[in-house]
Amino acid sequence: MPREVTSFSNSIVKLLRSLRDKKARRSEGLFLAEGLRIIAEARDSGRLPEIVAFSPEGARHPLAAEIISATEAAGGDAIETSADILAKMSGKDNPQMLLGAYRQPEVGLDGIDRSASDLWIVAQALRDPGNIGTILRTGDAVGAGGLILVDDCADPYSVEAVRASMGAVFTQAIAAARWPDFLDWLRVGESQLVGTSLNTSQDYLEAAYRKPCFLLIGNEQQGLPTDYEAACDLLVKIPMAGRADSLNAAIAAAVMAFQVRASWR
Amino acid sequence: MPREVTSFSNSIVKLLRSLRDKKARRSEGLFLAEGLRIIAEARDSGRLPEIVAFSPEGARHPLAAEIISATEAAGGDAIETSADILAKMSGKDNPQMLLGAYRQPEVGLDGIDRSASDLWIVAQALRDPGNIGTILRTGDAVGAGGLILVDDCADPYSVEAVRASMGAVFTQAIAAARWPDFLDWLRVGESQLVGTSLNTSQDYLEAAYRKPCFLLIGNEQQGLPTDYEAACDLLVKIPMAGRADSLNAAIAAAVMAFQVRASWR
Repeated sequence: MPREVTSFSNSIVKLLRSLRDKKARRSEGLFLAEGLRIIAEARDSGRLPEIVAFSPEGARHPLAAEIISATEAAGGDAIETSADILAKMSGKDNPQMLLGAYRQPEVGLDGIDRSASDLWIVAQALRDPGNIGTILRTGDAVGAGGLILVDDCADPYSVEAVRASMGAVFTQAIAAARWPDFLDWLRVGESQLVGTSLNTSQDYLEAAYRKPCFLLIGNEQQGLPTDYEAACDLLVKIPMAGRADSLNAAIAAAVMAFQVRASWR
Repeated sequence: MPREVTSFSNSIVKLLRSLRDKKARRSEGLFLAEGLRIIAEARDSGRLPEIVAFSPEGARHPLAAEIISATEAAGGDAIETSADILAKMSGKDNPQMLLGAYRQPEVGLDGIDRSASDLWIVAQALRDPGNIGTILRTGDAVGAGGLILVDDCADPYSVEAVRASMGAVFTQAIAAARWPDFLDWLRVGESQLVGTSLNTSQDYLEAAYRKPCFLLIGNEQQGLPTDYEAACDLLVKIPMAGRADSLNAAIAAAVMAFQVRASWR
């Protein structure tokens, strides 16, 4: 049976609330997902929360009730609480009626099964958690295997990234690595590393993409460092028609990923 | 000569600060842009701020100095102030060293010159200002003429939208209209209204796009209403490979816009 929690100072309330902070996520090994839609997505991908918190209203939905029972059956914690306390935990004025705390998977390259897909996205020093989450969502839609985070990227398990991923944080493989380690891992098997760049005349619509293709997306401000570009097997340019010389990083990832997929049809 | 302002209660400081609020933007007819990059982009597009505020550090850059002089020469106000006061105005801890307040253009459909481009983006009830700004930035890159906002969209002149647009708020035409008025205006000339939908088998890669093409992007949560889909000349589907059945709205706009452009080459 779910426990009822009515105090802001309850230790589970404090724990869930702390997960908005990266240090706490790391030390607890947990992250937060909000809302029935994402939590149902997680369950459909075989993932249940370790802790589920919900308002009486939130538990009324049959799917929510099912997930709450399944969480308890699997040995997890179920906490019935108020909308006010849920708001405190999620940091939003209009909180979702259902929150889950999930175990953070290990994020090494050895966890990546590169035979799982012909397309992978590699983000280099992406700082915006919304971009990371949006790229995960795009990766799911386009059939990518997952996202590899190179150098210091925003945390894919932050509340903003999880929210923007719309559940793809549970379906896409995620790994983090330093650049030299990533290159070593990449070169062990077949691979084409593709970067977008202004320093090439190769049009992205006319390039030949090979499987498995690893799309490298550079930092929001600086783009890819020169030596990272030099390590690519293929550099392509998305021609710009307007005044600007760049796209938002998540947009560039999507335009490239959908073009790679289109070229394989 | 620039005036020096050292008080948080100065009326211009209060005015600029108020522009983070939609009501104040509307009543003043002004909006805020931050940072040398965007303000230089505006100047290159022939737009100067009515008020420019900067720190001594911000004025040190030759391009900033030039814009400050040009603003004064055009009868605008130039305000030298502290980083603290700039932070207060922009609502950021690490503010840009240069802020500009610009006149908001009129936003009626009669301001749109449809001969200016073969491609236009139409957003329906988009609620996220970041999506609006990102779509403007994408529109600039792909050579769209501008963005038409149908129904209740987020304000394209909000600080978040202007920031995400990376200057495209100054280069893309922007108009707002109710749906029936938009349709009346659209049907006066040649046009193809294209919607993305799950309710069609027409693959977006195999569709025939006609000029001028108006890409209709639906609300983040609900997508397009059924009767809006029915009004389209063409409905296309972006096939989804993963668990999710949708893309982020700005991503969908970009994938469609770049595909339309590619199909015309």
